[in-house]
Amino acid sequence: MKQSALFVKTLKEDPQGEESLNAKLLIRAGFVHKVMAGVYAFLPLGLRVMNKIESVIRKEMESVGGQELLMSSLQPKADWVKTDRWNNLDVLFRFTSHYSQNEYVLGPTHEEEVVPILKQHIFSYRDLPIYVFQFQNKFRDEKRAKSGLLRGREFLMKDFYSFHADGSDLDNYYDIMAGVYKRVFDVLGIGDKTYFTFASGGTFSKYSHEFQMIAPSGEDTIYVCNKCNIAINEEVLESMNNACPECSSKELKIEKAIEVGNIFKLKDKYSAPFNLQFKDISGTTKNVLMGCYGIGVSRLMGTIVEASYDNKGIIWPESIAPFCYHLLEQNPGEAKQIYEKMIEDKHEVLYDDRKIGLGEKFADADLMGIPIRLLVSSKTAGKIEVKKRKEEKTEIINYENISKF
Amino acid sequence: MKQSALFVKTLKEDPQGEESLNAKLLIRAGFVHKVMAGVYAFLPLGLRVMNKIESVIRKEMESVGGQELLMSSLQPKADWVKTDRWNNLDVLFRFTSHYSQNEYVLGPTHEEEVVPILKQHIFSYRDLPIYVFQFQNKFRDEKRAKSGLLRGREFLMKDFYSFHADGSDLDNYYDIMAGVYKRVFDVLGIGDKTYFTFASGGTFSKYSHEFQMIAPSGEDTIYVCNKCNIAINEEVLESMNNACPECSSKELKIEKAIEVGNIFKLKDKYSAPFNLQFKDISGTTKNVLMGCYGIGVSRLMGTIVEASYDNKGIIWPESIAPFCYHLLEQNPGEAKQIYEKMIEDKHEVLYDDRKIGLGEKFADADLMGIPIRLLVSSKTAGKIEVKKRKEEKTEIINYENISKF
Repeated sequence: MKQSALFVKTLKEDPQGEESLNAKLLIRAGFVHKVMAGVYAFLPLGLRVMNKIESVIRKEMESVGGQELLMSSLQPKADWVKTDRWNNLDVLFRFTSHYSQNEYVLGPTHEEEVVPILKQHIFSYRDLPIYVFQFQNKFRDEKRAKSGLLRGREFLMKDFYSFHADGSDLDNYYDIMAGVYKRVFDVLGIGDKTYFTFASGGTFSKYSHEFQMIAPSGEDTIYVCNKCNIAINEEVLESMNNACPECSSKELKIEKAIEVGNIFKLKDKYSAPFNLQFKDISGTTKNVLMGCYGIGVSRLMGTIVEASYDNKGIIWPESIAPFCYHLLEQNPGEAKQIYEKMIEDKHEVLYDDRKIGLGEKFADADLMGIPIRLLVSSKTAGKIEVKKRKEEKTEIINYENISKF
Repeated sequence: MKQSALFVKTLKEDPQGEESLNAKLLIRAGFVHKVMAGVYAFLPLGLRVMNKIESVIRKEMESVGGQELLMSSLQPKADWVKTDRWNNLDVLFRFTSHYSQNEYVLGPTHEEEVVPILKQHIFSYRDLPIYVFQFQNKFRDEKRAKSGLLRGREFLMKDFYSFHADGSDLDNYYDIMAGVYKRVFDVLGIGDKTYFTFASGGTFSKYSHEFQMIAPSGEDTIYVCNKCNIAINEEVLESMNNACPECSSKELKIEKAIEVGNIFKLKDKYSAPFNLQFKDISGTTKNVLMGCYGIGVSRLMGTIVEASYDNKGIIWPESIAPFCYHLLEQNPGEAKQIYEKMIEDKHEVLYDDRKIGLGEKFADADLMGIPIRLLVSSKTAGKIEVKKRKEEKTEIINYENISKF
């Protein structure tokens, strides 16, 4: 893509009224636009990153049998009354049609919708297990929304629901999903900072598990056992006697962290209120057991920025960068042929063909954080200067060697 | 994909409480789930169709310079007060945070958001023109929502906005977009039934234009000039002296139709309230002029069903069918090798490997409407019986000839 065609402009200064590092950088670099506190629009480069995060996650969810669907944001009051969350969930946006006086919920999560859907398709043990997932906006009436993309009133989430005939099948699948989540965060480049973390299981399970990425700006506090490579959310530390559940060590390191995913054994918490049942092999009617598995997609975008930046701007991991290469030129048209060849060779490249000084181009390239910067100038003499965003050194190479980077 | 792995079940009978043909068929065939009146969830096959419609549209929007972004559904009251639509748009869902008493709108359209975004990136005539688009849910508090996917309280729309320095640039681009829209409906298989239709231009333009597809279930009434291949919405018929604007003929055929797209010259209707301005070449400050161009994506899915079905079920056009081939077998495993070969050869195939009678498989295949049915049975003797969904005749062919269909 030619940068001259991109309508978005970068900002030299931090935007006003924005406290969080991730939003400051993403706004300055032209990836997102702040609509209001907790609500962001995704500009072309931001949408490219979000689509890439989605692709990484989708591939892993399909690898364990997930079937993608798309549920609605508008949901009827009746289903939320059934699960007792109409009155008891403080982040619920509720409102009324001025025509019908029908009352609606804006989905902050989708258990109340996925269960009635599956009720029309699960009858017998032969129909189980079933795994479904979606990428859909969630809406939450958050008291505070000052953390940029980390805590949104509207945000994109991947939610996955599994349906099982018995507890051991749920347990097995839950363990598989824990592994899948680990792989997702590895591919996204934050695996080394992200811990499988014991957290509250609510009223229906002893524990749930979160995936927490260490970051100074994190809203959560976790206790890391470096030996076992796991962590404990402070909310359950006492109930675990302040010790690692694996090795019983009490040498835990306190860290601030951002929750990037969570997995839950819901058991029959949501199937029971809707009578989501099946007949087992002996003809006995039983409640379906459920697990749920969430990843905040737009939150991940903010989280990755918090994990990967320097004083010049963002440093995208290759797996989700908006482009792989950022091609710069000193004089107008100097890099045009290289650009055309790269497009022909199907490289993902943003070509800065703007008629501005090279210094400004360097600054924008650093701010936008595309992994590999290529420069064609009077000094490169037909060759290309390559620099990785996360390294200082440059190298002069032939076009043929681009793919090595 | 193996049909045995698909969690969705088809229905033999029409669902209760559903009046519209499109929703009846889409629910029976397992493409959508009705959440409540005007709100549907998209099951895996339905989502595949919607993604394909999106791809067709995206390609065309990018071909005329459209840059994709993603705006929010939650929007602040203040922007809707500025354009005077807070009190005057009857389909607006409005509500209040119980924490902050902030008032929100659920976006029924996105002029009030796209203009503030572009205001941060348009300063000079050198920044224009700009074209942006998105695929995003819209929410409308509709009085009646009994037409299935044709009139939703929540629905997916492609909205495209163009920004221009002067009226002639807007006019030129508007004509280009009219052509692009024609191409979209051609590719989607409804081009021959879809008319470029003169409609009301609101308070700011003489006319806007709709793309109306002839269908008995349509909510709109149009008058078609068969000679010029255009139509007039009845709302502006009188203002056009009951005559075709091209050839002045009064021989117009009255038809019921479904609006599948509309294009509007907004001029400065929305740029003025936000002071979206630019400096022209002489340094004079002027209002940016806008066009907007919408296509209802989920509505299109319903519209195409209304246009293409028979008494056995849906007949999908090839461009948006959930799969290209539906592979059936008489005895368990008979078609397994063919299926594996088709996957290897990258064919899009749904393999009905369920252990049920062939009659039931035929009925489901007809209901689901995948364009090409392949059958492997004791009678086909190593070859394959092929039948197009929209034709009665069958043919016995070798595997190598599959691609010809």
